[in-house]
Amino acid sequence: MHRTYSLRSGRAPTASQLNAPPPPTSSTKSGKFFGSTGIASSLRKTTAGQFGPELSKKLAQLIKIEKNLERSIELVARERRGVAKQLSLWGEENDDDVSDVTDKLGVLIYEIGELEDQFIDKYDLYRITLKSIRNIEASVQPSRDRKQKITDEIAHLKYKDPQSPKIPVLEQELVRAEAESLVAEAQLSNITREKLKAAFLYQFDALRELSEKLALIAGYGKALLELLDDSPVTPGETRPAYDGYEASKQIIIDAESALASWTLDNSFVKEPALSLHQTVDDIYEPGEVADAEAQWHEDELDEQQQQASASAPVAAH
Amino acid sequence: MHRTYSLRSGRAPTASQLNAPPPPTSSTKSGKFFGSTGIASSLRKTTAGQFGPELSKKLAQLIKIEKNLERSIELVARERRGVAKQLSLWGEENDDDVSDVTDKLGVLIYEIGELEDQFIDKYDLYRITLKSIRNIEASVQPSRDRKQKITDEIAHLKYKDPQSPKIPVLEQELVRAEAESLVAEAQLSNITREKLKAAFLYQFDALRELSEKLALIAGYGKALLELLDDSPVTPGETRPAYDGYEASKQIIIDAESALASWTLDNSFVKEPALSLHQTVDDIYEPGEVADAEAQWHEDELDEQQQQASASAPVAAH
Repeated sequence: MHRTYSLRSGRAPTASQLNAPPPPTSSTKSGKFFGSTGIASSLRKTTAGQFGPELSKKLAQLIKIEKNLERSIELVARERRGVAKQLSLWGEENDDDVSDVTDKLGVLIYEIGELEDQFIDKYDLYRITLKSIRNIEASVQPSRDRKQKITDEIAHLKYKDPQSPKIPVLEQELVRAEAESLVAEAQLSNITREKLKAAFLYQFDALRELSEKLALIAGYGKALLELLDDSPVTPGETRPAYDGYEASKQIIIDAESALASWTLDNSFVKEPALSLHQTVDDIYEPGEVADAEAQWHEDELDEQQQQASASAPVAAH
Repeated sequence: MHRTYSLRSGRAPTASQLNAPPPPTSSTKSGKFFGSTGIASSLRKTTAGQFGPELSKKLAQLIKIEKNLERSIELVARERRGVAKQLSLWGEENDDDVSDVTDKLGVLIYEIGELEDQFIDKYDLYRITLKSIRNIEASVQPSRDRKQKITDEIAHLKYKDPQSPKIPVLEQELVRAEAESLVAEAQLSNITREKLKAAFLYQFDALRELSEKLALIAGYGKALLELLDDSPVTPGETRPAYDGYEASKQIIIDAESALASWTLDNSFVKEPALSLHQTVDDIYEPGEVADAEAQWHEDELDEQQQQASASAPVAAH
């Protein structure tokens, strides 16, 4: 895993960065006086600032490549089922024990393909949930653009014709645009968090289900292997008759029943051993995080930071 | 999972089928008198019998499509890493909590891609081990062909010229060919089982490692989500400053350490609940299967079948 604990090289985020929704930034700050062309505009494009027109583009790109990922997993699932059939087909020409065991291994591996297919459907819930964020991002854009446009017009007029009667009219319009923008930004802030959390809960629950079921299958697969008569024979010696049909069938039945009865609530890998917490129940129960954070601060950082974990919104500190 | 417990429709294998190595089948039995052309030959091809020239072809085909599967998993791993980077990139433009959490989620998802890549290397051990079986299958083929050719020649001569002095010479040659064939078939029988078992132990151990590690990551991922400040804000309200940097970093450190300390021996999903056995330790310990089978027979089928599970090779019963 990455030693930097971040995928962004050279990025050192600090807690002092501005919180959302940030106050509307005046266009004069970026040296932008003359509309949307020229050096300032290209500068804004390359810096791709927080309010650039790129707003929903990066997430749209993510949603697009997630679709590619789904298609590739679909391919894996299809090929897995093909492999299962071919394994069974090959084994059929072999002796009874090899034939039966490969056939049953084929059943398990085919099931892996089926589970991978089911995973894609659940993963797509994650992807679709990200679309809600992309949509709110895209819908916030016009509100930002409108505010920006009015701000630009005011700045332009103040430079060209400081006495223009249009300026107070535009300033009133700006106040209204800013009010609308505040609402839009709050919606963006809320929906982004709500949907981001929901999306990744879908992904991680789906991943946990797939992975734990695959781990179960691996166990039953190994049990099947024990039915192979792998004691060496000498030339001309015949192997004892294979009598594992009942056992192998029972292993498949047991695997089927273990997979069918698996739920998130009785999953195997329940609680990550978080060294920050005594138990992680607090991390897993929504709403308990503030408590967990408070406890962590008590343990680790003393009372100085305790106030930071108070759950009531605090404007600044 | 398949209700038939088999990938082969209509196949009903019985314990009474011939064991390997079977006695050499006379070519006259298949009505084959005139070389390798004609109806009999095409019939043999379509029935794809146990000793057809297809011997190593089905396994070669399996090994080929396993390579395709590996390439597809490689694609998934690559796309997974791409998704991780794009997620982090998108989040970077968001508020501190969203930015930090998506960056750390990116680290975990990138790690999934890395684990999938490592899985491919281990899966390839499985595939390469299958090649040993394919190779012995291919090397047994000439020995079978030679025996077949001599048998055909004898049958042909006996039909055309029953008094030919060549017949006793060919019959002596056949005895030698059959002896060689017996050795080859015993090698095939032993190596097939030894390598099949080894191959699938590789696959299932690799699958268990990947899947349990992914389940761990899913748990740490969910822990990260709790750091998102998802309490709704009203328009104009600012969120409290994000103070989860230490916690998120610690979650990544903990995840890293949990993944690093995972071994097959301390895996989560240990023992399938096999209803045939009291415990499954017996299934898991090589060499104990005979005992387990014996116990199972005692429990389930009475003494009649007990002799079938005796570990000494029995010619027939």
